[in-house]
Amino acid sequence: MPLASWNNGPAKQAILDFVHATTDPSSKEFVPPEERIATFDQDGTLWVEQPIYTQVVYCLDRVPAAVKAKPELAGVEPFKTVLSGDFEKIAKFSLADFEAIAVATLTGMSTEDFEADVKAWIASAKDHRWERPYTELTYQPMQEVLSFLRANGYKTYIVTGGGQDFVRVYADGLYGVPPEQVVGSALGVTFGYDKDGRPFLTKEPKLLLNDNNAGKPESIHLMIGRRPRAAFGNSTGDRQMLEYTKSGDGARLAMLVLHDDSKREYAYGPAQGLPESKVGTFTQDLYDEAKKDGWTVISMKDDWKRILAFE
Amino acid sequence: MPLASWNNGPAKQAILDFVHATTDPSSKEFVPPEERIATFDQDGTLWVEQPIYTQVVYCLDRVPAAVKAKPELAGVEPFKTVLSGDFEKIAKFSLADFEAIAVATLTGMSTEDFEADVKAWIASAKDHRWERPYTELTYQPMQEVLSFLRANGYKTYIVTGGGQDFVRVYADGLYGVPPEQVVGSALGVTFGYDKDGRPFLTKEPKLLLNDNNAGKPESIHLMIGRRPRAAFGNSTGDRQMLEYTKSGDGARLAMLVLHDDSKREYAYGPAQGLPESKVGTFTQDLYDEAKKDGWTVISMKDDWKRILAFE
Repeated sequence: MPLASWNNGPAKQAILDFVHATTDPSSKEFVPPEERIATFDQDGTLWVEQPIYTQVVYCLDRVPAAVKAKPELAGVEPFKTVLSGDFEKIAKFSLADFEAIAVATLTGMSTEDFEADVKAWIASAKDHRWERPYTELTYQPMQEVLSFLRANGYKTYIVTGGGQDFVRVYADGLYGVPPEQVVGSALGVTFGYDKDGRPFLTKEPKLLLNDNNAGKPESIHLMIGRRPRAAFGNSTGDRQMLEYTKSGDGARLAMLVLHDDSKREYAYGPAQGLPESKVGTFTQDLYDEAKKDGWTVISMKDDWKRILAFE
Repeated sequence: MPLASWNNGPAKQAILDFVHATTDPSSKEFVPPEERIATFDQDGTLWVEQPIYTQVVYCLDRVPAAVKAKPELAGVEPFKTVLSGDFEKIAKFSLADFEAIAVATLTGMSTEDFEADVKAWIASAKDHRWERPYTELTYQPMQEVLSFLRANGYKTYIVTGGGQDFVRVYADGLYGVPPEQVVGSALGVTFGYDKDGRPFLTKEPKLLLNDNNAGKPESIHLMIGRRPRAAFGNSTGDRQMLEYTKSGDGARLAMLVLHDDSKREYAYGPAQGLPESKVGTFTQDLYDEAKKDGWTVISMKDDWKRILAFE
């Protein structure tokens, strides 16, 4: 049975109906296999994003190595605070602070060195609530949607505000999504030669794609070149991707994960009176737009029998 | 028999050997299917690029429509010359002239309107030498390479200095390469809403990716995220893509098409004493690098039994 971790209800039914309508050759809304494109936001849609994005944890963890390589950073903010381990102060960092940390920890190295480092980190780092590798914090019901769509000829893409190079390292193993199907925020790279004349690419402190809000459909056009048939998100950053998807002709599926289960995961909005969040904002007007335009809101509390596979 | 339009010789043998080495499970150089990536330049590698790139013909053909929409362009260069039909003068246009024409004919419309227009044009326009649709000016031997690689589990990509949005319109029908596997020079697009609130994307006069020279491996990283196992080009603009491909570990195939058949197609270099060309330069030092680093040069004259399918 597909979608085993989903309770029966309108959300599960919307997925089943959409797949039936677009893959049954006798359906008026049949979609040829090559046009079956489904896009998924990552943080908060495929895995836990609270209390802090996993990639931000990576960057903070990498500060000591960055300071070792450039000792002059040790006495400079925001690096000084990161090294002090004062989490209350870190939580209050400005966007400029986080940008400085991103530049120090995500740029200046070869793409291959970066990949190797993320690979080692993701294999060993653990979150603080469950004390498990981050790759175990994926939502079992969404894993089932990925599999179910692929089993029905859909090509599944991740379209994330997170770093494309970062997510590509583990997306294949974790989600079955290969690197070429990960679309994310991207820094430019520069081609050059090492001392032996071997070419390599260096990660540069230059934002090429900002894959949030309008940047999502813009990057979908650049990287995929087709309007998705189905899209999944959980925050205002996914609004334009869902609008772009839903406004195409024929059957389209637009879904939003609402984090309303404070016991099994986290509860935040501020849609539906849930507490406001700095990470992954789901506003009431996004909720209202979903209801008005025929998107489906997934209640984690009511629609998901199980949230995390290890529960 | 694969590669039926190829004469027996080192070029054909290089392709057969590479595919055998990377797909035979008992081979020491076996490559898992998901890593089988092959990239192809388009102009001069998959189809004829002389005497003028097809996309430039499109832009020139679109000038009257652009002038109709913006009548003030009629009296301004370079549009005035294009409207006069003075081909000798057009042939002497500067890069700035061509940029002005590109901005006028490739930007300001929705991505959907642009696609529809290219689709109509490519179905009706004909070249001046053979009086045939441009889509018939594809090299039969290269079509066989595309098919042969795909039949052996390779994912084939186009990596072109031409416009990504332009090539995507016909690449699936002509080469069997779907939009998401066409990487090319790209203008930015901007997300917005029409008067009915329906979202659409507008093509902007802002160059996001320049897919020539170092831009090719840089875009391969952005769009594919894997180093190709095989790459095919025909000019100095493909040099870095071939270097990047060939310098990976294990079996790698790097091939350059040399246009040395003035009778059946065109002959230009200046490698090997062939005449210099404004379009698709193949220098002697590129030829020397190929010989030194184990790339394979394809002689159209000697290696290809047939060049164009309609011959």
